[in-house]
Order: sequence, then C-alpha cells, then structure tokens
Amino acid sequence: MSIDDKYFMHEAMLLAENGRGFVSPNPLVGAVIVKNNKIIGRGYHKKFGDAHAEVNAFKNAKESVKGAKLYVTLEPCNYLEKKTPPCVPAIINAGIKEVVIGTLDCNPRVCNKGVADLRKAGIKVKVGVMRKEIEQQNESYLKYSQTNKPFVILKLGLSLDGRIATSSGESKWITSPQSRKFGQEIRKQVDAILVGINTILKDNPKLSCRIAPWKTLIRVILDPNLTTPPHANVLKGICPILIFADKNSRSVLLSEGKNLEVIRVDKDQEELLSWDDILSELAKRNIASVLIEGGAQVASSALQSGVVDKLYLIYAPKILGKGISFSDYLRLDGLKSALKLKDYKISRSGKDFILEAYVHRHN
Amino acid sequence: MSIDDKYFMHEAMLLAENGRGFVSPNPLVGAVIVKNNKIIGRGYHKKFGDAHAEVNAFKNAKESVKGAKLYVTLEPCNYLEKKTPPCVPAIINAGIKEVVIGTLDCNPRVCNKGVADLRKAGIKVKVGVMRKEIEQQNESYLKYSQTNKPFVILKLGLSLDGRIATSSGESKWITSPQSRKFGQEIRKQVDAILVGINTILKDNPKLSCRIAPWKTLIRVILDPNLTTPPHANVLKGICPILIFADKNSRSVLLSEGKNLEVIRVDKDQEELLSWDDILSELAKRNIASVLIEGGAQVASSALQSGVVDKLYLIYAPKILGKGISFSDYLRLDGLKSALKLKDYKISRSGKDFILEAYVHRHN
Repeated sequence: MSIDDKYFMHEAMLLAENGRGFVSPNPLVGAVIVKNNKIIGRGYHKKFGDAHAEVNAFKNAKESVKGAKLYVTLEPCNYLEKKTPPCVPAIINAGIKEVVIGTLDCNPRVCNKGVADLRKAGIKVKVGVMRKEIEQQNESYLKYSQTNKPFVILKLGLSLDGRIATSSGESKWITSPQSRKFGQEIRKQVDAILVGINTILKDNPKLSCRIAPWKTLIRVILDPNLTTPPHANVLKGICPILIFADKNSRSVLLSEGKNLEVIRVDKDQEELLSWDDILSELAKRNIASVLIEGGAQVASSALQSGVVDKLYLIYAPKILGKGISFSDYLRLDGLKSALKLKDYKISRSGKDFILEAYVHRHN
Repeated sequence: MSIDDKYFMHEAMLLAENGRGFVSPNPLVGAVIVKNNKIIGRGYHKKFGDAHAEVNAFKNAKESVKGAKLYVTLEPCNYLEKKTPPCVPAIINAGIKEVVIGTLDCNPRVCNKGVADLRKAGIKVKVGVMRKEIEQQNESYLKYSQTNKPFVILKLGLSLDGRIATSSGESKWITSPQSRKFGQEIRKQVDAILVGINTILKDNPKLSCRIAPWKTLIRVILDPNLTTPPHANVLKGICPILIFADKNSRSVLLSEGKNLEVIRVDKDQEELLSWDDILSELAKRNIASVLIEGGAQVASSALQSGVVDKLYLIYAPKILGKGISFSDYLRLDGLKSALKLKDYKISRSGKDFILEAYVHRHN
C-alpha cells in the first residue's frame, strides 16, 4: 500500500467517523475523491436514510470527478431494496477511473458484488487499504450485517478487586466523573442500552444519554418476572423501552404502548432469559449495537453465554473489599476455561484507567 | 536545579541501583565526583558491611579530588556505631569543596547532622536534587529507618475480575511466564517473602528466588495454629524460616534450629495475628522490606490493617468467574471507606499488565 493510499483512506476514515451515532444500523462510510494527488471532494454518510458517502463526495466536489480516483472506506453498495439509490451505478456514471476500498461490505447482499460490478464497468479496484482500522471502525455494522445479531458491548465501572458494588449494593460512584462522562460517550455511540431488573429496582436509573439528548437510545430491561415498577425513572423518557420477560410470566401493571413493548422469550438451560432470543429480537428492531451496563447477573450471564463482543472495564484505583463482583454468577470449569480477552488497550480517565478489549473466541 | 546537577545526580542514582538486593538494611547510595564539569570518580554501596558510596568514589577517582564537587544520592553519615567508618570526616579530609545531596537520610541518627557537619567544615552543601526519585529508590530503607518497620509490598497475580484463584483453589498459573519472572525480580529485591499457611498447605511452594539463588531470602509464614507440615517444600531450603504463630498455639512437630524460628505473637481484635507485632519482629531481624504473596486471607488482613505500602497487581487479560478474590476477607464500611491507591503506573508484561501503586494513607 502506498503512503498516498493510506493518507487518503485515513482522511476518508475521519470523515466516516462524523456519522457515528447517526447512521446505525447503516455502516459508517467516508469517501474522498482525488485528482492529480489532490482531494477535490469529500463526503460521508451523515444520517440513516440520507445520501451515502460516495454521492455526498460527488456533490461536494469542487471540479469534475471524471477520471478521478475514489477512496471509500467500505465497499460501495449495488442493491436496490432500500431508501437510497445504490452507489455503484453512481460511481460508474460519474466517470471514476479507479476505486480504492478499505474493506468489503460482507453484508450478504453486497459482499464482493460491488467490486465485481465496478470491475465489469472497466474501473480499476483496489481493496484492503487500512482494512483492520476500518473493520474496527465498523465493528458494530459488520457483526450485525453478517450475523443478524447486534454487536454487544459490556461496560462496567469497578474497583481493582473487580467489585461493581459493595456488599450492601452501594455503587454510586466507584469511578470518577471523567469516567462517567466516558460512559455517556459510549451510550451516544450505540443503538440500545441494556440492564437487568435488579439495576432498575436498586438504582432506578434514567438510562439517558445526557450528552446527546436528541438521540433515540432504546432502553432494554431484562425483567423475567415483569417486576419493573410502573413509575420507574427509565419509563419516563420518550425513547422506546423494550422489556424482555419470561414466556410464562404473568401480565403486569405496565401498559404497553407507543414507547413500551414487552417481549416474551424462552429461558435457557440456566433458567435465564435466552440471550440468543434477546439478540435476535433486538436485531429485528434494527438495533445493530447494544451496551450492557450491568448488574452482576446480567454481566455474568452475557459472558457465560458468549454473547459479549467487546468490554470496557473502567477501573478506579481503589480496593472495595468484600462486595459484588461482576463475575459472581459466571461459573467456569477451572482456569483452562477462563474467558480470554484480546487486543486490549489501556487508557487513563481522570484517576481511573480504562481497559478496552475484545472477547477471544475459540472458533 | 541546574541541568548539570540533574545529570550528575542521575548518574549517581544509576550507580546506587547496582546495590539493589545486596545492601539491605542499608540504603542504596551512589556517588560521583565532578571536577571541571567532568566525572573523575564513581562509587556505590555494593554490599551490606562494605565501604560506602563516597569512599568507593574516592578510591576510584582518576585524579586528586581536592577542590572537587561530590554528588551523592543520600545524606552522608556521620555516626560511628557501625561496621564502616562515617563518611562526613572522609569527605572533609579529602578536600571536597561542594556536596550535592539527593535527599536527607532521616534515620534519626543522621538526619541533617551530616549536612550540618559538612557546613561547619566550610563545605558548600545543596540538598534536594532529584529528591522524589531518590526517595522512591530508597523507599524501603527510608520507611524502615524512620519507623522501625519493614516496607511492605503486596504482590498478586490476578484476573480482571480480581480473582487470585478459581472456586476450587486453582491458581497455577493465572499470569504469564513473563509475569512470573517479574515476580522473581521482586523477590530478588526484598529481604523477606511472606505467605499464609493456606498457601503452604494448598500450593506447597518453595518460595525461592530462582534468579538469585545466592540470595538470603527469608521466608515468613503466618501460621496461627502451627500446622506447617514438617516436610513442606518451604522448609527444605537453606534460607532462614520465620513462622509466626498465635501466642496460645501448642508446640509442634517442627524442630526449631539454625534455620527455623517460631515467633509467637498476639492476636488482634479480628482474631488474626497482629501485623504490628509481626512487622516489629521482622524489623528486629534487620528485615527492611517484606513481600506478601498471598493468599486471600493474608492479603486482605494486611490491607485491612493498613500495613501495605506498595502493591503490584499483575492482571492477566482473563475473566475467571466465581472464585477467590484477594479482598474477600477485607471488610470496609461502604464506598467512602474504599482503600485508595495513588501514584499508580501501568506497564505490560507479556500478555499481562502490571499495576504498581502505593496505598494512599489518610494522615
């Protein structure tokens, strides 16, 4: 890969990043048009339902794009069954000479077909510039579009001894204000936030995204026996609420309506709501990413079921002593079965440090 | 502080570092002699009982030290009741013109008296160049000499959820080979290593320092009821063993002798061996630093009693699930009483990361 390719693709990646929090369940996509080694047009996918990155770059081009080179982070689409017109014909019609693609869109409807159609039209195509970085940028979309399950993030604020609360359940606040702001940043980037009923009963949280009040952040509650109190704070917002309950749970006081949906699912062999069913139901509702925020039972069962893709463990430099660990309900068969994390990064956040990592899967 | 001062003091610090593992309970001390802005002599305290850094620097000087400047990391001593002659008269007799000192030796027998005597002799004295770094280099000595208690380090290998073992007690090995080597590095630097009886019974460790087999590493076992098996591996080495037992424990099969001493101490209000008594007994035996390696009960009680000065928490990027946390026996009164750590640093160790931190004391 040439330095130029990397330079222009990085520019496209930065453009793509502007769409974060707005485009889901679509991917983040950025594009730059280059002529004589100069950028003559820039575009990105701004909002779900709006024009795609390539088309925006064409619109913004300062001169004719005929004969130019297009850098686009994700493989251009060539299918019709959606709001926006496909990009491949637009690229061909614009007279683009060469297309450099970050990574393929392995959505079954696109994968390699965009590339094939471009090549058929005589356009030179190169794939894989900054592939790894772009796959990470679109990790939610790529998982969602390939598996039809949302990307699952588990975020926890904890002490160095792994406690998310004291013995008496006290958890406000283990981490620093900066870390709680970081938590809000993650909320801004996902489609839904998920907690267990115990968190609702104990902390009565609003689960809002304070730094992006305009955002439709879907609240998901795992509430097997439907004991969410009708006056819980979480029910007061205007964002949709999905409550997952056991198939055999009785009906409740909660009045389903425009904002509130109760979804009944099966229990798994551990007598917990089936994560498989929960994630399928979320995907059906166009939720490409979900953030699990606790408590211990939900965190443990998500880890136990192997549905967690990514973790943010935000450690305060404290030791809490005997208390509640996030893994107290996770039962593994000895050291050899320990859940391994990979590709971890550590950064500081006020007094705390944040470990960002992926779950290592044994495929 | 001039750049030159820092440069030469840094050189002296590096020299001092060569004594680590050999000089305790004496401090690490390094010295350089500077004339016309050039180093003409270097020295450090090599071994307990041997010559001091200043004297070694004089010996190694390539030319006359008359009129030269001496950089020494720790305040020169001026007292007589020890093996080696005091340094202050040697400095005066050598005709040194100016002395730059890293930090005062606040051993009550020295503190400021070395400086006063030098000044009385007409020598210019400057104190405090790289003070913080040098105080950290000598953290064991400074605590030991000022409080007559050893510096206490707690080192644990653990998972991200704070577990030091699985529910069944399995702990070999949570961390990577690189981290276990790092553990040996710490053993090399301390005077004694301490574990609880459960660790002896469960793991039957040798507690040796494999990377420094020549080292006299004192093994300390907290064994309230004197149940250490006479054939335990830890008893097989040639290094001294100190077993702390309850004052009321009955006598045992263990035969005290040249290498084995049983010390009976009081219990505290928690019905655990009194850390205060244990540390005083260790100090009496010239132990300036002790490394606690577990298990959970010993780690928790040391933290509970507030005797831990420094921690090395070596995290493997794993989640172990329900198991044994190092803080399972630490009972604190809510979040506000959480033990706070300060000045923490994080470094990588193979796949693991090491958090090095100090306990924040509320003075």
